[in-house]
Amino acid sequence: MGEFELIQYYFASLSAPRDDVELGIGDDCALLNIPVGECLAVTTDSLNSGVHFFPDIDPFALGHKVLAVNLSDLAAMGATPRWVSLAITLPSATEHWLAEFAKGFHSLAAKHHVALIGGDTTRGPLSITVSAKGTVAAKAAIRRRGAKVGDAIYVSGTLGAAALAVQQRLHQFHVPDEALKICVQHMDYPQPRCELGIALRGIANSALDLSDGLAGDLMHILRASKVAAEIELSSLPIDSAVTQSVTPDQALQLALGGGDDYELCFTVPSEHEPQLEELATALTLPLTRIGTITEGTPQICWYHQGKSVELHISGWEHFHHGEAGKTS
Amino acid sequence: MGEFELIQYYFASLSAPRDDVELGIGDDCALLNIPVGECLAVTTDSLNSGVHFFPDIDPFALGHKVLAVNLSDLAAMGATPRWVSLAITLPSATEHWLAEFAKGFHSLAAKHHVALIGGDTTRGPLSITVSAKGTVAAKAAIRRRGAKVGDAIYVSGTLGAAALAVQQRLHQFHVPDEALKICVQHMDYPQPRCELGIALRGIANSALDLSDGLAGDLMHILRASKVAAEIELSSLPIDSAVTQSVTPDQALQLALGGGDDYELCFTVPSEHEPQLEELATALTLPLTRIGTITEGTPQICWYHQGKSVELHISGWEHFHHGEAGKTS
Repeated sequence: MGEFELIQYYFASLSAPRDDVELGIGDDCALLNIPVGECLAVTTDSLNSGVHFFPDIDPFALGHKVLAVNLSDLAAMGATPRWVSLAITLPSATEHWLAEFAKGFHSLAAKHHVALIGGDTTRGPLSITVSAKGTVAAKAAIRRRGAKVGDAIYVSGTLGAAALAVQQRLHQFHVPDEALKICVQHMDYPQPRCELGIALRGIANSALDLSDGLAGDLMHILRASKVAAEIELSSLPIDSAVTQSVTPDQALQLALGGGDDYELCFTVPSEHEPQLEELATALTLPLTRIGTITEGTPQICWYHQGKSVELHISGWEHFHHGEAGKTS
Repeated sequence: MGEFELIQYYFASLSAPRDDVELGIGDDCALLNIPVGECLAVTTDSLNSGVHFFPDIDPFALGHKVLAVNLSDLAAMGATPRWVSLAITLPSATEHWLAEFAKGFHSLAAKHHVALIGGDTTRGPLSITVSAKGTVAAKAAIRRRGAKVGDAIYVSGTLGAAALAVQQRLHQFHVPDEALKICVQHMDYPQPRCELGIALRGIANSALDLSDGLAGDLMHILRASKVAAEIELSSLPIDSAVTQSVTPDQALQLALGGGDDYELCFTVPSEHEPQLEELATALTLPLTRIGTITEGTPQICWYHQGKSVELHISGWEHFHHGEAGKTS
């Protein structure tokens, strides 16, 4: 089998059957059935070697990660994930690399019942573009622009662990073995919060996923909603692998300025807050209130145990994303 | 303005309003409304520098071409083009380059009323992935597997001109100036046959677009439909810029084995053939009958003025595609 036949062999194995796939891989287009009353939700992310992942990344982890970061965008919209296309450019590939990449991709796809419906394989420097597609009723979709004054601001999971793994890798400082293992797991295997996103329909007024760090990402909600925010730093759910490995100030920088958390940040009106406790239990996922939406021009006011504090988020070199930006 | 802000500025200008866009660029996902009774048709193509286009390509032409090759897949399905996402990885870019790329993309997008609904811009070696989306009723979609014994085989437009431009560029042989200009135009500015594809709903039993050369591409229809084909070589609509520039044998090789024509190849039952003449006139686009679908295992039998001939298609080095392959 030639190299690209091999790729097609492995990718064809990712094409799980779904009733809503009218026509899958193998024609000029895929044909997909959208439930009546729902919109198509689409997101596209590219990951490039040396920019979004280390060139020696475990191919199983890469297969997981390219899918995870896309499903995370669907989760942030409250959309049900359904289909995904995969465009992969690679210089050359061994059967082992391809098999592992496909396994990593497939294990996450199966978990979220997502079918591969097409793509393209070309030769060139390693670059992967995934486009994930889901559906959600227009009224149920959770947009960035929906935050209202008085909303509580929440984040799921914990913050900062993936960013610590990236910084440790770049600067080789000491992190205890156990903690480093946890952080690398966060970096390589982000978990898209699809169930949470769907459950937040009708509960959250706004949401997005954290890919570039809470401080910057929350600003997207504030700008889109034309509101401000107050954040209580002592409430931030910083991962314990981070707090035990670096100074409190470094931990804050990682939680606020580091990227790759792929947790959801969302705002909830007070009448819906009681539902979040049940939800956290049902999903076995911490949901932490970190602040409040306030009136004013888009900005974040930082507090530490109730006292206003100044904060400069800049202490960590960005490995990821650089100036590049996603347009959706 | 920073480089990537510049990109976003130019790309935002491509986001033409469409009533069916519930939410465009700027959130975690785009939200799109699919007409009731229609399927979503999706295709994804990557183009890499040095593989699918020459590194010094005019950025205006590149902007056109990345969109054209994707719209061509929608055309082959009979789908109405609606939306497109654009993931672009580039090492660096001047304002001139970006402005020209955006202009080339926009001029074709406007012609086909296609809106940019999202994408991603990242830093790395030049690579572009476009995903085009359209809609078509499941029953009206024209699939590769629908060819029937007795169908007439047609191609639109002319063949071989783009491939001659590629070969001339690679091997620097003499091609008359006027002819070369025409061929380069075909290479840089393929025209997606969207109107033709839509018009062929209910007329054609099968279709695909010609990206890798008629001989190989037609085999996709034959394999999917489990039929054979007879092709009359003297009927092939080889571009006159090709026939006047190379030997008859070379012209055949370019028309059958060269790529990048982006014309449609389709099969039509005899009762619908009369409609094609009107269609050709209405679209001012040649539609040429080149053969017939026959019973048998998937293969092409070549004829020259009615006599069976042997044909080896291999005379031209492939610049494009290499071993790489599209999975949809």
